[in-house]
Amino acid sequence: MKRVHHVGIAVADLEAAIKLYTDTLGGRLQRRGRLDDLEFALIDAGDDELELLAPDDAESAIGKFVKERGPGIHHVAYGVDDIHQELDRLRAAGLEQAGEVRTGVHGTPIVFLHPKSVGGVLTELVQE
Amino acid sequence: MKRVHHVGIAVADLEAAIKLYTDTLGGRLQRRGRLDDLEFALIDAGDDELELLAPDDAESAIGKFVKERGPGIHHVAYGVDDIHQELDRLRAAGLEQAGEVRTGVHGTPIVFLHPKSVGGVLTELVQE
Repeated sequence: MKRVHHVGIAVADLEAAIKLYTDTLGGRLQRRGRLDDLEFALIDAGDDELELLAPDDAESAIGKFVKERGPGIHHVAYGVDDIHQELDRLRAAGLEQAGEVRTGVHGTPIVFLHPKSVGGVLTELVQE
Repeated sequence: MKRVHHVGIAVADLEAAIKLYTDTLGGRLQRRGRLDDLEFALIDAGDDELELLAPDDAESAIGKFVKERGPGIHHVAYGVDDIHQELDRLRAAGLEQAGEVRTGVHGTPIVFLHPKSVGGVLTELVQE
């Protein structure tokens, strides 16, 4: 890992969450958009970033998370230089890939690691 | 908020977690210690920080968290300039303080905000 790339937060109401993280907590809305079955908003907190994730569909991964556990912290993402090289290294160390490498909201490759292999933490790698 | 100060991660086995976040994931152990009823290890990830928290006592807040939900992401902490001023502002905006302002592992004042008032996210303020 080079750094914490962002913290992903599952929210039930994206408008309310944007208001909370900007007006109240003092972050800055970088941009919002839609990717696959979710709506997202990226919040800048200084040089750090929060990724607010709202389900577009109750059966999506985020929809199920919110339904089962309520809104809350969803994942931690780390920036890496070469996602395939890092993923090979982490798999060799026993970490378990969850899903395919795909294009994330920043337009670069991302991949998730299964929380059961990372001490209960859903972990994302983001190529920078 | 000025930035994300750290991400707090509840762990069951501090030694194993330190090994995971350093040897495997590539962070650097900054230091470890004990504060009240928990053991902690601070992991540097570039300019970012992870706070690994292990319960010293099953009845502590972290002990109960691990018992009820398993290890995983516990809280997100934001750096602030003046914790009392920021706390007054956030309380006036409807956020709920959880516990007293106290000295955190960095030797500066910290305070938690109740997750039910912050979209399910246990939120910490750290004076920098």
